[in-house]
Amino acid sequence: MKWSIGADIGYTNIRVVRVANGVVTQALNFPTDVKSGPSGIARQVFSAVSKLREDEERPPEGLGVGIAGQCDIRSGVVKSGPNLWWNDEPFEGTLADMTGLSTVLRNDVVMATMGEWKHGAGSGSDNVATLFVGTGIGGGAVVDGRLLDGATGCAGHFGHVSVDLDGPVCTCGRKGCVEAYAGGWAVARRAQEALTRDMRSSELLHALSKGGVDTVDCRMVAEAAHRGDRLALEIRDEMARALSSAVASVINSLNPEKVVLGGTVLNGFPALREMVAEGALRACLKPVRKGLSIVPSSLGDLAGSIGAATMVMEKLG
Amino acid sequence: MKWSIGADIGYTNIRVVRVANGVVTQALNFPTDVKSGPSGIARQVFSAVSKLREDEERPPEGLGVGIAGQCDIRSGVVKSGPNLWWNDEPFEGTLADMTGLSTVLRNDVVMATMGEWKHGAGSGSDNVATLFVGTGIGGGAVVDGRLLDGATGCAGHFGHVSVDLDGPVCTCGRKGCVEAYAGGWAVARRAQEALTRDMRSSELLHALSKGGVDTVDCRMVAEAAHRGDRLALEIRDEMARALSSAVASVINSLNPEKVVLGGTVLNGFPALREMVAEGALRACLKPVRKGLSIVPSSLGDLAGSIGAATMVMEKLG
Repeated sequence: MKWSIGADIGYTNIRVVRVANGVVTQALNFPTDVKSGPSGIARQVFSAVSKLREDEERPPEGLGVGIAGQCDIRSGVVKSGPNLWWNDEPFEGTLADMTGLSTVLRNDVVMATMGEWKHGAGSGSDNVATLFVGTGIGGGAVVDGRLLDGATGCAGHFGHVSVDLDGPVCTCGRKGCVEAYAGGWAVARRAQEALTRDMRSSELLHALSKGGVDTVDCRMVAEAAHRGDRLALEIRDEMARALSSAVASVINSLNPEKVVLGGTVLNGFPALREMVAEGALRACLKPVRKGLSIVPSSLGDLAGSIGAATMVMEKLG
Repeated sequence: MKWSIGADIGYTNIRVVRVANGVVTQALNFPTDVKSGPSGIARQVFSAVSKLREDEERPPEGLGVGIAGQCDIRSGVVKSGPNLWWNDEPFEGTLADMTGLSTVLRNDVVMATMGEWKHGAGSGSDNVATLFVGTGIGGGAVVDGRLLDGATGCAGHFGHVSVDLDGPVCTCGRKGCVEAYAGGWAVARRAQEALTRDMRSSELLHALSKGGVDTVDCRMVAEAAHRGDRLALEIRDEMARALSSAVASVINSLNPEKVVLGGTVLNGFPALREMVAEGALRACLKPVRKGLSIVPSSLGDLAGSIGAATMVMEKLG
């Protein structure tokens, strides 16, 4: 049976999986050795690939790699990985040389979109949009049965759809990006600012952070929301409002049949996903609403690596 | 030489043109007989088509029709033309039967996008987004060398990208759509509201409207802006801010190589197009900005009919 290898290189973890028919038959997961740089990380992936090949007589069809950074899909170069400090790294070629495998490199969220489309919540549809809410917000789209790349392979930056002309400043420099409301970093910032203004705005968050306002993170805010904390629920409501608006704008622009919502931050807050789906459906235009469904991602943490393995199989298999 | 016919059916005018190689060799333009309904309008088009065929020995390859309304591209049915009061009208079939020609029906802005892509400002690019600012705001996109249809043929509703969570209410019911800032109807409403609050907010507009605040329309506001009127220029600046934001969000989502800006309202205000292009380039992400150009539409009023003629040629030719 044909099989392929998918790797998902994140800021903290690397996942390398063996995939046949969209099903993971073996998975390796280890911390990203960020300090070792591109060559060190390539060695980490190579070592995992070798391990996955040990018990297989038949060689894999290829290696798909998703990475948390911007990729030039024509040259296979990683142009910028904001937290990995890479610049114009010919990573696809490096991995192909090391492993001797046909290698395809893409942004990790593009790979996750591929995974959800081919084997997850988006399967069966030719027009899909995805939105993954983590520390940052990324997305992707399938248009008329093909993955949306864009002119330079950078399409799908739905996290940088602005929902408010005078909204909070985003890391990209622009005001009101939905990521500046609902990305994990923005949630933490919002809670920290509220606590700095007034310590008593959330006694629970104050307690969870052991009094260190600077240590308040998105996970704490999510926990506080689950426990009914007023400030945390206010932040959640604002996340829902911003995300609904951005998703509705994406729907009005792309007219997808399915919208797949995922990501640890989205799933971490009580009822948030449902609020976003309802809000977006209410806000979008009637003719694009027809036949549209907004569904939760179904592959979870494995979407990226399954998508990467699927991508290389589709390209070469 | 192969040729085809393109028709552009608007609320006020119908244009029917003979096109060979993207060039208009004959053009007819007449008022839309809205009252006569779908069958009357079909007869108007049929009569124009007959006229264009008179001097040609060779029959046309087909008839492309763009219409100001939502179309189901699979069934050729016009689902809703807000000002034409149609409902589920099998207009493509009606025209095909009447003319005996292979007929392709689409939304008029989709056809204009096709025209600008194949023979206008977007030519030579595989990834193009268009935005046409008239009474309403419509758009379209070319993705990876193919026209973006979406699941139900309704993609490209960039006028209903919301740029402000608490912005003015749009005709679609949502708050903050860019059309509610910069569509012709919104510009008129904004000026009327300002004049109602304070007659002296623009003595020029007051004079142009001959004191009838309700008669202030977008054209008057544009004229006042050209003459340096403070209120009109404030409205123009707000249009620019909203349009820049929406265009930047579309760019971040689709990563086009070219963005084509057009429409009578956009072109009617002094410096507006340049302001939007500069604002959008400043606001969008660095990796999608690379190699991107924002250009004026080049086919003007003919974009829709040229696009329609081109569409049918590409489908059948």
